[in-house]
Amino acid sequence: MRVVDIITKKRDGGTLAKEEIAFIVNGYVDGSIPEYQVSAWLMAVFFKGMAPEETVFLTEVMLNSGTRINFDGIPGPFIDKHSTGGVGDKISLVIAPLLASVGIRVPMMSGRALGHTGGTLDKLEAIPGYRTNLSLAEFRRGLAEEGFAMTGQSKDIVPADRLLYALRDVTATVESIPLITASILSKKIAEGADALVFDVKYGSGAFMKEKSQASALAHSLVNVGTALGKRISTLLTDMDEPLGNAVGNFLEVEEALDCLEGNGPADVMEVSFALAANACVLGGKASCVEEGLELCKRALESGLPRELFLANVERQGGDVKRLLEMRGNYRSQYVYDLKAEQSAYITRIDAYKVGLAGVYLGVGRNRVEDVVSPVAGVLLHKKRGDWTNVGETVMTAYAKDDNSLREALSLLKDAVSYGETKPSNSDWTNGLIASQRRLDRTGRSS
Amino acid sequence: MRVVDIITKKRDGGTLAKEEIAFIVNGYVDGSIPEYQVSAWLMAVFFKGMAPEETVFLTEVMLNSGTRINFDGIPGPFIDKHSTGGVGDKISLVIAPLLASVGIRVPMMSGRALGHTGGTLDKLEAIPGYRTNLSLAEFRRGLAEEGFAMTGQSKDIVPADRLLYALRDVTATVESIPLITASILSKKIAEGADALVFDVKYGSGAFMKEKSQASALAHSLVNVGTALGKRISTLLTDMDEPLGNAVGNFLEVEEALDCLEGNGPADVMEVSFALAANACVLGGKASCVEEGLELCKRALESGLPRELFLANVERQGGDVKRLLEMRGNYRSQYVYDLKAEQSAYITRIDAYKVGLAGVYLGVGRNRVEDVVSPVAGVLLHKKRGDWTNVGETVMTAYAKDDNSLREALSLLKDAVSYGETKPSNSDWTNGLIASQRRLDRTGRSS
Repeated sequence: MRVVDIITKKRDGGTLAKEEIAFIVNGYVDGSIPEYQVSAWLMAVFFKGMAPEETVFLTEVMLNSGTRINFDGIPGPFIDKHSTGGVGDKISLVIAPLLASVGIRVPMMSGRALGHTGGTLDKLEAIPGYRTNLSLAEFRRGLAEEGFAMTGQSKDIVPADRLLYALRDVTATVESIPLITASILSKKIAEGADALVFDVKYGSGAFMKEKSQASALAHSLVNVGTALGKRISTLLTDMDEPLGNAVGNFLEVEEALDCLEGNGPADVMEVSFALAANACVLGGKASCVEEGLELCKRALESGLPRELFLANVERQGGDVKRLLEMRGNYRSQYVYDLKAEQSAYITRIDAYKVGLAGVYLGVGRNRVEDVVSPVAGVLLHKKRGDWTNVGETVMTAYAKDDNSLREALSLLKDAVSYGETKPSNSDWTNGLIASQRRLDRTGRSS
Repeated sequence: MRVVDIITKKRDGGTLAKEEIAFIVNGYVDGSIPEYQVSAWLMAVFFKGMAPEETVFLTEVMLNSGTRINFDGIPGPFIDKHSTGGVGDKISLVIAPLLASVGIRVPMMSGRALGHTGGTLDKLEAIPGYRTNLSLAEFRRGLAEEGFAMTGQSKDIVPADRLLYALRDVTATVESIPLITASILSKKIAEGADALVFDVKYGSGAFMKEKSQASALAHSLVNVGTALGKRISTLLTDMDEPLGNAVGNFLEVEEALDCLEGNGPADVMEVSFALAANACVLGGKASCVEEGLELCKRALESGLPRELFLANVERQGGDVKRLLEMRGNYRSQYVYDLKAEQSAYITRIDAYKVGLAGVYLGVGRNRVEDVVSPVAGVLLHKKRGDWTNVGETVMTAYAKDDNSLREALSLLKDAVSYGETKPSNSDWTNGLIASQRRLDRTGRSS
């Protein structure tokens, strides 16, 4: 087999056999195939796509490049939630203890902020002492006890994805549905989940700007994941304005606590409940989404999810007492209130611009080696559809230092649009559920 | 400027600015941009093409990556002929002394056989003693004295092309009209020609299988070459059956001598005269192609081209006496006569299969490090349209050894098609002249 023939076949629109995909991916991982051939192949895939069976093969080959976690001895179901990334997206912190409270174990391996999107690990590390580098034994213990644990990805999980992603990032081959599908699914399956709920976001603050792209990715995740024997639900959700009122690391931990106490913003709660309800169906805890929704709402009211969250903080080294003391006052001293320029309705708050402003403020990073600030961020006092009088505070920005504050402000000002007409209601989860395989209580699909 | 942004722009169908093209090509040559980004960019160019002005920029940037030869002190015009490569294509050996005989200097820098196509340097080196590694001083001296010289390409000429071609070869990005155009033109212009005649071949033995592709390349060469201030003529010629009766290294030298003595095969003569006539027009030696044709025919009859060829052989270290003695008897001992399987018309001799058989026989090479045999090759006793009786010899194969003979024979047998109807006449140069800028005798275009 010659790599150039495989590249040519894909370039000319052919469908690659599993051995051909294995040859190129394994050869890249073991160093026998040079990066310049892999990147040409990735660009050919970008243009010519992959048939569903090719994407299945690619996912399997990537999956087999590393170790797979298993939770033998701990009763399931094991369900993970994955978001394609957004601004103000603290859903993971809410949904993991919520699902744990209804008997679903959530083995959550998360990432860090990069570009305009936030990262769950950075948020958790804003809690004093919280460790996100768990050993596998620690991860298992958390899952067995609280029903969830939250950690960074082990280096042993899908090394092929780490290598391929690094190459895609510098060769303009990231935005490919089959490559994204294989990247996400190989990691999530290797992490040991039986079933997966995906939050595929669209809009300015999302990776996919168009709903049609998000829908294509959702279908691909469902088709490929199902072919690999996993139960999959996918929600399309709106990421055009920031999710919730807080964008930041500690700020979002606070908002997650608000959610767990029943005081969360409407959009965060809607998305969290919708994803959790679907997970309940996948995990056999509910026979339909509506029943799952009821189950989750009752669970939240019981207070158990909040208890489990604080137990997890303690298990992972966090200082619960300090966390609760710091609520509402752990803030940067570099503060700026952005005032409304007119009396009008807020017609849009552009999540991408807020996310980029966040990078300047210190929430996220431009390069992997940048250090994030726990106290930086943006608090939104108004959201799309709210009326504001001139001079009212629309947002408060917290910066890691004085320079970065100045740089962020023009982005934040630009992010806000005003109008005389109240915009139509947000449709946070008017993202249809791309597909769902219903399970009865015994776990069989119907 | 970031490479990934340039790749993205091309990937999304944008037109690159000269600085962007210079950034990526120069960065590749100086080692600051890694191969994996260049190959992804090349694949994006493969899919999205280049606007004519981008191809002009690319050619200029490549041209400026190395030295340019100038022939100051030697009177012009300097015109080179370039073929896109074929099977049995010995036109260079005929046309260089022919044009020299009418006062056009031909600075010919040629390549070697690779794949199924032959190489001028390998053919010349079949002449005992002939050197193809001339110094620039030797090259100039040949041009000044005989009016032509034939050598390999200097390493200092367009290093960007050497690097890019090597990368394209292993990343399935060779077959791109703008990349081919820039590769050919940058080299030919760097080699010092004022005007160029291109033989763009199509058919099974050519690089371009379809006439439409060849036509697209011809138009691109004319447009880009003209924009760079060169006078360009392009012929499309048929390469579906081997050109002439000889495919091999010494065999083709013999056939070139036959041509220079007025005894060449009809197809070789037709293509040689057509290209030479166009060169006469470009060089101001004739006011139209018909006049150029007359001039070249008279020149050949004078015997001067043959004299100049033998003078060149002597200048470049070849043994003229031995060359002439060896004619007709310098043959491999491993011989096989391929007999006609039926009494019928020969309807096709597939040049690609004959060329591939040639690689096995020892004419060409599979890898650059392979050594070619001077005495290997194929002699065609019948051509398309000829009648053959069963048992008559259609071809004679000469192999470098016994093993390679066996491997070549099934390809040669496969190459011949028979039929009851005489096929229509060959249309060797029914390739239109893609474009031509006529010059008056003073060298001005009209």
